[in-house]
Amino acid sequence: MQLLKDMILEVGRVEGEGVLKVDSFLNHQLDIALLNEIGKAFKEAFKDADITKILTAEVSGIAIAAIAAQYFKVPVVFAKKTQSKNLDSETFEGEVYSYTKAQTYKIRVSKRYLSSEDKVLVLDDFLANGQAALGLKQIVDAAGAELVGVGVVIEKAFQEGGSLLRKDNIRVEALAIIEAMEEGKIIFK
Amino acid sequence: MQLLKDMILEVGRVEGEGVLKVDSFLNHQLDIALLNEIGKAFKEAFKDADITKILTAEVSGIAIAAIAAQYFKVPVVFAKKTQSKNLDSETFEGEVYSYTKAQTYKIRVSKRYLSSEDKVLVLDDFLANGQAALGLKQIVDAAGAELVGVGVVIEKAFQEGGSLLRKDNIRVEALAIIEAMEEGKIIFK
Repeated sequence: MQLLKDMILEVGRVEGEGVLKVDSFLNHQLDIALLNEIGKAFKEAFKDADITKILTAEVSGIAIAAIAAQYFKVPVVFAKKTQSKNLDSETFEGEVYSYTKAQTYKIRVSKRYLSSEDKVLVLDDFLANGQAALGLKQIVDAAGAELVGVGVVIEKAFQEGGSLLRKDNIRVEALAIIEAMEEGKIIFK
Repeated sequence: MQLLKDMILEVGRVEGEGVLKVDSFLNHQLDIALLNEIGKAFKEAFKDADITKILTAEVSGIAIAAIAAQYFKVPVVFAKKTQSKNLDSETFEGEVYSYTKAQTYKIRVSKRYLSSEDKVLVLDDFLANGQAALGLKQIVDAAGAELVGVGVVIEKAFQEGGSLLRKDNIRVEALAIIEAMEEGKIIFK
């Protein structure tokens, strides 16, 4: 997606080893016009697929999933990271290993909002080590639903997530694939 | 907003003292068609106002703010609850007291994304004790920006938040105001 790549080159900032900051438009400040184009691109990428629900994880996937869902005309469900009084006690769970925090945390979806009838598209901002997507897949599996595919805005191809998912026969569509980030320079695939 | 009130009566669940669960459409599963109507209603409520940015706090405000921003044609910024490598070190901070957890936590916005030029609309899902809105106001104040108003989907008028904000001369627009929840019954103002 050219518009997205242009935006990454123009305002993305490479900070430290493998860290790409896109917080000016994707995960802190949100460029809503761009999110709409991203939503259309996901719809185009999965136009052949029959999808009943979009699943993401809090926090960064929510705005992307909500805007994209307008083009799929299906509800969004976002998995929660914390137990709270607002979450049902009956949940489907997935585990996500965080490399930055070096610990595993759980993500949960109420059993009310996923069923074995659902054909699920997982959407997220980044695909890096793939742990969030795998945790969401566990939730889809626990519900007995079908995982149609995973759509990500930015894939870091120099990390293992993409190959992990594809090896598992999961359909992955990335709108921008970064092959390498060298000396602050971003190289797309 | 009648559609919203109907939805609350139809699928909202009163669980325990003062807890209204609307997770089937507002803060876990998201009904995107309804969120669009909510976004239009916020635009209608603030149609006379000059707004340059929508501010919300993670997590529940994000989808509402992102969808609504399509009608205002301005960017969204969401305040973050955790320090992370993805957040700049230079931030505007606000403090939020959580009654459920009986502790104060900080919310932060990078100084890159708010300035003294901004006219800010705060959006959120609920207005109950008003602590989140007051924390967001601190961030707006710290940036030297102007708080144009606070829009909430549901105000619980039996809690103090609405009167706290209005006493502080903050313009508050609520799309559904709940006067009381008695024996599982929801009474709108």
